[in-house]
Amino acid sequence: MEYGVQGFTASAVAAGLKKGGGLDLGLIYSVEEANAAAVFTTNRVKAAPVLLSSEHVRNGKARAIIANAGNANACTGPQGMDNAQKTADMVARVLDIHPEQVLVASTGVIGEPLDMGIVSKAIPGLARSLKPDGLQDVATAIMTTDSFPKKALFDGVVEGCPYRIMGMAKGAGMIMPDMATMLCFIVTDISIDAAGLQEALTKGTEVTFNRTSVDGDTSTNDTVFALANGLAGNRELSREAYGEFVRGLTGVMDDLARMIAGDGEGATKFVILEIEGAASPRDALRAARTVANSSLVKTAFYGRDPNWGRIMAALGRAGISMDESRTDIWIDDVQIVKGGLGCGKEAEVLAAKSMGKDSFTVRIDMHLGNFAEKMYTCDLSPEYVSINADYRT
Amino acid sequence: MEYGVQGFTASAVAAGLKKGGGLDLGLIYSVEEANAAAVFTTNRVKAAPVLLSSEHVRNGKARAIIANAGNANACTGPQGMDNAQKTADMVARVLDIHPEQVLVASTGVIGEPLDMGIVSKAIPGLARSLKPDGLQDVATAIMTTDSFPKKALFDGVVEGCPYRIMGMAKGAGMIMPDMATMLCFIVTDISIDAAGLQEALTKGTEVTFNRTSVDGDTSTNDTVFALANGLAGNRELSREAYGEFVRGLTGVMDDLARMIAGDGEGATKFVILEIEGAASPRDALRAARTVANSSLVKTAFYGRDPNWGRIMAALGRAGISMDESRTDIWIDDVQIVKGGLGCGKEAEVLAAKSMGKDSFTVRIDMHLGNFAEKMYTCDLSPEYVSINADYRT
Repeated sequence: MEYGVQGFTASAVAAGLKKGGGLDLGLIYSVEEANAAAVFTTNRVKAAPVLLSSEHVRNGKARAIIANAGNANACTGPQGMDNAQKTADMVARVLDIHPEQVLVASTGVIGEPLDMGIVSKAIPGLARSLKPDGLQDVATAIMTTDSFPKKALFDGVVEGCPYRIMGMAKGAGMIMPDMATMLCFIVTDISIDAAGLQEALTKGTEVTFNRTSVDGDTSTNDTVFALANGLAGNRELSREAYGEFVRGLTGVMDDLARMIAGDGEGATKFVILEIEGAASPRDALRAARTVANSSLVKTAFYGRDPNWGRIMAALGRAGISMDESRTDIWIDDVQIVKGGLGCGKEAEVLAAKSMGKDSFTVRIDMHLGNFAEKMYTCDLSPEYVSINADYRT
Repeated sequence: MEYGVQGFTASAVAAGLKKGGGLDLGLIYSVEEANAAAVFTTNRVKAAPVLLSSEHVRNGKARAIIANAGNANACTGPQGMDNAQKTADMVARVLDIHPEQVLVASTGVIGEPLDMGIVSKAIPGLARSLKPDGLQDVATAIMTTDSFPKKALFDGVVEGCPYRIMGMAKGAGMIMPDMATMLCFIVTDISIDAAGLQEALTKGTEVTFNRTSVDGDTSTNDTVFALANGLAGNRELSREAYGEFVRGLTGVMDDLARMIAGDGEGATKFVILEIEGAASPRDALRAARTVANSSLVKTAFYGRDPNWGRIMAALGRAGISMDESRTDIWIDDVQIVKGGLGCGKEAEVLAAKSMGKDSFTVRIDMHLGNFAEKMYTCDLSPEYVSINADYRT
């Protein structure tokens, strides 16, 4: 029960939706009706399960999450909506709950009909195999190009009642800030009302998944669900207890966001990009995003090349206030740019050494104001191209 | 004299600025003072030669262009400005012209001081070897990661006087629309005032280089120069003759823009992206840019995969009006999406065949309005990453 949470059971099966085989359909079930919150993609093209689940979660209640990999059920028209609805109906029937208590999520190839024969055949078995330590299997079942299942835990205490937050996520490509992540499911046994849960989830998403970028593309299926079933037994949360819960939840999401960036398709390095001294919050965020999404900067990360000219050029086209002659840049603790000029070969040799590690930080101080931002990103490798050139074939 | 233009001479030399050797410093000279026009990068970080040349071209006159590859003289501070100025001074001295008549352009690595010993040693020889058929050598000297020199011609007649427009360009990475290209020099013997030349150059840039994208990055050095020395002997241009000149100039720039996209770093395919039926001009352009810059769309081009779901997802995040259920997509003449839904495996097999060619067209009709745009782009290959990971080493 390393990743188990009181009152939640889960299961997964290799139904046959993923082309390579492996677990691809997962079910999470709460023995009590849970308060529920969600954040969805901002893409105008929204997958059928996103449209359906945003209706189902509106009343702040849910009891089950059914999720598949291998097929996104996106760009599938009325038939796709029908298939998402049927999936919820079947799960409701076998669990003896209401279809509106079922949240649905899909990830995988866009534009192909979901094979409902496979889904309907697998659902009864999923229900039968629900077990307290099944959450880890669901984390595996939602993987697509991910190289490992992404899980995170937080254990807290409120009013003497221990509670746990368990989060899982998938996502390795089509990851772009401002749009949540791919899929993330969070379950907790704390007792919290749906409004408080939604507020915590929205805030947490903003500073974690919305600060994560692999390739600048945004999925049609991005979904974050949180279910809280209240079995920890606490009463209404005090302000302090709520604050601790928010920190715990954000910590779990932050762990998952870092795993997503570090496991970016083809990534060999996890990079934290820090912007300081920006003239406005908007400038800080634009600077962070523009540098994090620059293909030239990301290929230089891959090549362990402290090619700061590309960072300067990215800042220069970000559409922000910038004074070249005030800009400073560090790789970890090594300053490579001072006042817009390079700090010389010795500094670059040291910086290149830092860039040889699995993870490093790029810090940029623009010296124009007091606003800061961060972004989690990764390098761009030839492997990214190979993965995405062959994804459907 | 295949690429010669009356009254212009040119020369190039392997001065030693490019790490791999080869021609890297070029000079273009007009025997008469020419009317001059220019378009520069919109990047806030501007290279020293961009800052200097924008001053020198302000009066609409010039007689020489000196250009080097291997070093961008960008992010080099006051020393960089001084080096650009010294370069102009030396060229002026050997040609016995005024320094303000000299335009300077540089391309290559950012943030390293230009080796003035190399430059000053080479300039006298460049002046001595000026010759009528030297323009082609300059086209070679400005190459960096380009795989071939990019040249284009237009021959026209005005009032019975034949005239010629010759253009050359370099650019293979750090190419992004809305920002001109990397370097482009155009020389013509037509007689045209500086204001008319500037208007034609600005308009032409907008529909050619500003519709070209390789990687979404924008150089600090982007420069387009045009010199018209008037030796064709025509009088003031009539409205019709001006129209023909604009068409000829735009055609030369269009040829060069296509070559730049097709020669994108690591590119194996040239792709024309056409947007139709957008709700506004802004939406049309944003749609074109977002799809053209999507790493996932570009890797699918490389993989010859008509993965239209990625195109739909890119449109959906472009921040534009979009109705998924009205969207149609074609690859060349093969429709792969109708009303937001895939047209089936047969269509995709045909589309994949088109994508196997060196160049193809992706046409998207959004059916929301009457606005259209196009973008020249290319695929994203593992080779792009290799080129840019190793660029400085």
